Amino acid sequence: MIVVMKSGATEGQILTVQKRIRELGFKDHLSRGDERTVIGVLGTIHPDLQDEFAGLDGVHSVVRISTPFKLASREVKGEDTVVKVGPVEIGGGRLVIMAGPCSVDTEENVMETARKVKAAGAHMLRGGAFKPRTSPYAFRGHGEQGLKILAEARAETGLPIVTEVMDARDVDLVTRHADVLQIGSRNMQNFALLDEVGRAAKPVLLKRGMWATVEQWLLAAEYILSQGNRDVILCERGIVSHETGTRFTFDISAIPLVKHLSHLPIIGDPSHATGKWYLVGPVAMAAVGAGADGLIIEVHPDPDHALSDGPQSLTPENFSRLMEQVGAIAIAAGKPLHPPLGQE
Amino acid sequence: MIVVMKSGATEGQILTVQKRIRELGFKDHLSRGDERTVIGVLGTIHPDLQDEFAGLDGVHSVVRISTPFKLASREVKGEDTVVKVGPVEIGGGRLVIMAGPCSVDTEENVMETARKVKAAGAHMLRGGAFKPRTSPYAFRGHGEQGLKILAEARAETGLPIVTEVMDARDVDLVTRHADVLQIGSRNMQNFALLDEVGRAAKPVLLKRGMWATVEQWLLAAEYILSQGNRDVILCERGIVSHETGTRFTFDISAIPLVKHLSHLPIIGDPSHATGKWYLVGPVAMAAVGAGADGLIIEVHPDPDHALSDGPQSLTPENFSRLMEQVGAIAIAAGKPLHPPLGQE
Amino acid sequence: MIVVMKSGATEGQILTVQKRIRELGFKDHLSRGDERTVIGVLGTIHPDLQDEFAGLDGVHSVVRISTPFKLASREVKGEDTVVKVGPVEIGGGRLVIMAGPCSVDTEENVMETARKVKAAGAHMLRGGAFKPRTSPYAFRGHGEQGLKILAEARAETGLPIVTEVMDARDVDLVTRHADVLQIGSRNMQNFALLDEVGRAAKPVLLKRGMWATVEQWLLAAEYILSQGNRDVILCERGIVSHETGTRFTFDISAIPLVKHLSHLPIIGDPSHATGKWYLVGPVAMAAVGAGADGLIIEVHPDPDHALSDGPQSLTPENFSRLMEQVGAIAIAAGKPLHPPLGQE
Amino acid sequence: MIVVMKSGATEGQILTVQKRIRELGFKDHLSRGDERTVIGVLGTIHPDLQDEFAGLDGVHSVVRISTPFKLASREVKGEDTVVKVGPVEIGGGRLVIMAGPCSVDTEENVMETARKVKAAGAHMLRGGAFKPRTSPYAFRGHGEQGLKILAEARAETGLPIVTEVMDARDVDLVTRHADVLQIGSRNMQNFALLDEVGRAAKPVLLKRGMWATVEQWLLAAEYILSQGNRDVILCERGIVSHETGTRFTFDISAIPLVKHLSHLPIIGDPSHATGKWYLVGPVAMAAVGAGADGLIIEVHPDPDHALSDGPQSLTPENFSRLMEQVGAIAIAAGKPLHPPLGQE
Repeated sequence: MIVVMKSGATEGQILTVQKRIRELGFKDHLSRGDERTVIGVLGTIHPDLQDEFAGLDGVHSVVRISTPFKLASREVKGEDTVVKVGPVEIGGGRLVIMAGPCSVDTEENVMETARKVKAAGAHMLRGGAFKPRTSPYAFRGHGEQGLKILAEARAETGLPIVTEVMDARDVDLVTRHADVLQIGSRNMQNFALLDEVGRAAKPVLLKRGMWATVEQWLLAAEYILSQGNRDVILCERGIVSHETGTRFTFDISAIPLVKHLSHLPIIGDPSHATGKWYLVGPVAMAAVGAGADGLIIEVHPDPDHALSDGPQSLTPENFSRLMEQVGAIAIAAGKPLHPPLGQE
Repeated sequence: MIVVMKSGATEGQILTVQKRIRELGFKDHLSRGDERTVIGVLGTIHPDLQDEFAGLDGVHSVVRISTPFKLASREVKGEDTVVKVGPVEIGGGRLVIMAGPCSVDTEENVMETARKVKAAGAHMLRGGAFKPRTSPYAFRGHGEQGLKILAEARAETGLPIVTEVMDARDVDLVTRHADVLQIGSRNMQNFALLDEVGRAAKPVLLKRGMWATVEQWLLAAEYILSQGNRDVILCERGIVSHETGTRFTFDISAIPLVKHLSHLPIIGDPSHATGKWYLVGPVAMAAVGAGADGLIIEVHPDPDHALSDGPQSLTPENFSRLMEQVGAIAIAAGKPLHPPLGQE
Repeated sequence: MIVVMKSGATEGQILTVQKRIRELGFKDHLSRGDERTVIGVLGTIHPDLQDEFAGLDGVHSVVRISTPFKLASREVKGEDTVVKVGPVEIGGGRLVIMAGPCSVDTEENVMETARKVKAAGAHMLRGGAFKPRTSPYAFRGHGEQGLKILAEARAETGLPIVTEVMDARDVDLVTRHADVLQIGSRNMQNFALLDEVGRAAKPVLLKRGMWATVEQWLLAAEYILSQGNRDVILCERGIVSHETGTRFTFDISAIPLVKHLSHLPIIGDPSHATGKWYLVGPVAMAAVGAGADGLIIEVHPDPDHALSDGPQSLTPENFSRLMEQVGAIAIAAGKPLHPPLGQE
Repeated sequence: MIVVMKSGATEGQILTVQKRIRELGFKDHLSRGDERTVIGVLGTIHPDLQDEFAGLDGVHSVVRISTPFKLASREVKGEDTVVKVGPVEIGGGRLVIMAGPCSVDTEENVMETARKVKAAGAHMLRGGAFKPRTSPYAFRGHGEQGLKILAEARAETGLPIVTEVMDARDVDLVTRHADVLQIGSRNMQNFALLDEVGRAAKPVLLKRGMWATVEQWLLAAEYILSQGNRDVILCERGIVSHETGTRFTFDISAIPLVKHLSHLPIIGDPSHATGKWYLVGPVAMAAVGAGADGLIIEVHPDPDHALSDGPQSLTPENFSRLMEQVGAIAIAAGKPLHPPLGQE
């Protein structure tokens, strides 16, 4: 950390900063410039201290020179993390596809979707039993009943299940039924929930908060990692911006930026980001081009009657066509599709 | 709701839309223009249906013509809601000031702050016992012990307590100690938590999500209201934007916009919005000028040693000076300060 | 400027940075920490050099420790700049009100508006002869004819004129007719235009780019100042964000932040920021509460038939009522209304 | 256009709206719902009228049901526009690469870069002779001298030149030397400049304003098209957002969205969007995956000594490697690289 003093800082103010640094058990290192005096702080600094020093008299600004996340950082762990979900490996150099309906509606629809996405080459089944909804009057999911439908779909197809958990009190329940616990965008800084899934025995798919910087996102991952769960998969799903032509703005640069800063695998969700089915394919291909380790895509046999997010769901036919295109891009991008289940 | 068909929509596509409207129990009303055909849907439409219709073939767009929130809406309830917290009335035409430290640290500091903010004219004491922190390594609050310190401060000063609850499992605990349950910005769409405080017997202070539109915020309030708790106070605390000179962008227009759309009281939090103590006063005065029903302000006897958010905290002396200026603005804005406690 | 090296930077990389600093005529100052080595650069650094150093091998980041604007900076000039426009002083501790139609339409309407806003206490007349329009098919202003109408309104009422110039080739023409040259939000980084008004003999009202940070805005002011024109008035008019309930997000914190960083006067434009007439009053009062030196407000005798921006224009009656409220807030905020023209 | 009345709108207010519609020469179509009355307006409506109606008493909102751009719209012109620049075709189903330095610095560097990017397979040379700079003290380009250096590079290599024009007064000069006139992001709504290049005899590369929605961008293109110049190439280069880890947020979804709404070709600029050389490759590949018609990439033989934007420039070696990867992705995405010059 570096404390930059104001141009007119007094000797007394400089001394106060130095004294406080030493009080906290760190070493200080003074450097007087033509314009400003600068005080280096040697040692690993707690992020909060930055705020404290910024508030001292005579201080112009405080500059952090180390990243605030450790366990999530590539500086700390150089090699890529590979998350294993049954026979599927995420982050291991092959592209993993998760597909399924936004919400679990009927057993019939889920089964049909599961069979069709498997036939098209998907490796995992997604579907929401607990649904975050902007309006309290919208359909909020079938809950445990939905989890059971998903488990049946897994029993038949072999596809591991990824499903959202929204409430710290449901973590045990969802852990019993699901293979991957999804944390939704709105819960990226629900710290009680992060702590709880950090202690769970299943991998976590952590969606980016629609307001979050990449750094805040990696700090949310750090919450989970620091509780002992090292199997975190990141998922870019779009951030808020002034553009109104799409539901969110898919931050494509976040994919290589995460790869640069962290060893954790990262996948893309083009369905929620765009909100329009005809944009899902191009953004999916873009994510693969940018180096994503996987995709999560909404597929519904009858999007017009889906209980949520119909306009952004692909039909199984469109999904099947997309899988062919994605397969070609994946090879060109150097990260070919993961083998189909049963053929790993 | 109005369904706008594409310019080249076929008769079959138009019929499909009409059929689906009737299936759902609504009436349709067809209107053929030179450019486009438009189908009105008569009746109160569930927000999700908008998405469904947007996905039908031949549909250009779907336009909602009624607001998605009901209980929070001024169209439904014309007169202002007044939330009573002990002797304090929020939304009743007089400006209410909540002040205190960001985090509850020592009993001594909280007591000193409580006495001093009361002496300066504050009506309620704020302070965090449970703290949402971006980093897992930051100070996360004293929990129940912190609640007890706050309760002692209330016992001595008579100031009602507003404090954050972050976990649905803690709602009972916090309800026992606090007078107002605060939902933080990061939890504005933590729907499990909203449901729980919607069933609690204490008023709720609902901070705006830093990513949320005013409409999404009012829908979050609708969650609480629809569970039966009608005592919701809204709090503008800044949204994300590209400006980096302040911590967040305080959306001043949201104050009169909320007043226009809703009957709920709204207060402003200039401390978290700006992140800089020297901007707190001007933004506080702005919020009062814009018609806010109250302010929530961070005050700490020793901001340089606060456990969190030091740089944005006022000293008791600065707070006292600000109260005088705010008092003058409040009169000019037609909403004078609430009488001091004991003198209502 | 401080160059922070990566944790594993080699001695050779450190030497290369030091060599380059010296090549450029600066002094370097090395400081080795536990985690990182840091190199201070002494001397006034051109902002571009920051980019250059950031690109060198082994460099983690480059930190600027001085502001990139000089002439606009309060560090360079402590006392407030007061811009004189005929009998009106902007920035001199009294609140100045500019009012008038968005576009100059008929002579009759402009005259009527000028008389009425003067009667209500406005100090300057605003009106657009050249209009920036998002669509090429919208009304783009009466050009020179519009300027003449404004000049007639000044002749009759004595109100100085503020009007937009959009094209570097029009600066001479507009300078001949207007008292203040307005640079619109979309032209905040039209550098050819900034250079040209920097050489003009009239004060400049520089609106903030809807995408700009406060720092970028002050750098745009620096363009004008560095050409010799020291009479720059800043105008906050809203930035883009994800909120769709208002046209733009009025950044209220920018007013005190500009006051902190710069000596230039700053006014607020609540009309363009909100886009809704019923939000103009509250945001105007907020801007005064936050310390603005003036307001610019759209007033039209018949907003429903205005050639542009009808929905955000006040009627003369509403404006007159607002002036009373603003007058009261202005006193409370310690910056009372500028005396009416003829009574300074 | 549809005018939605407030729920309590009076018969008189409804009549006023109908009267005004007829005054303007349109037909109205009334539809009374349970909740609201809605008035359809038949005919092609000027965008400004939307604002006018929104301001009438009793009106809840006004809904546009047709796009405000015409010449740029795919509804008006179904087939893709192909822009020819000498032997190069942009938008014709093959991927076009433009590369070169951010600023034209020395003749030597430009020549070396031109030769090397051509050898690597680039089809056009980019380089700035006039540079928009945030600070007035930064290097602002060599002007006409720079144009001559670019022309020499073209003479030797055959690569057509794309270069920025920032001032309406320079359009003739730049048209004489360049093959494509670039409008920078900051000038996307410099309407004087748009009009001027709309009358020029060279194609225009229109970068997206960093604050602009896709609709506003297409309206800026409409300015150029409506002046008679039909050769407009769009360029996505990132928008502002709250993410600070990259210079801008590259809006990948804009590429397929533009393809959906418009017939104009669109390319991507990963260099300015990301601001970091190590993100350029992944974002370039993403843009190709999303269906871009081309890329524009900064390449400099010595990025550490470039006069601007060093950190985001590739070395010729890195560019050459990227071209191989891009070539593979381009084939997979169904839009292979344009043949090298001399081999079309």
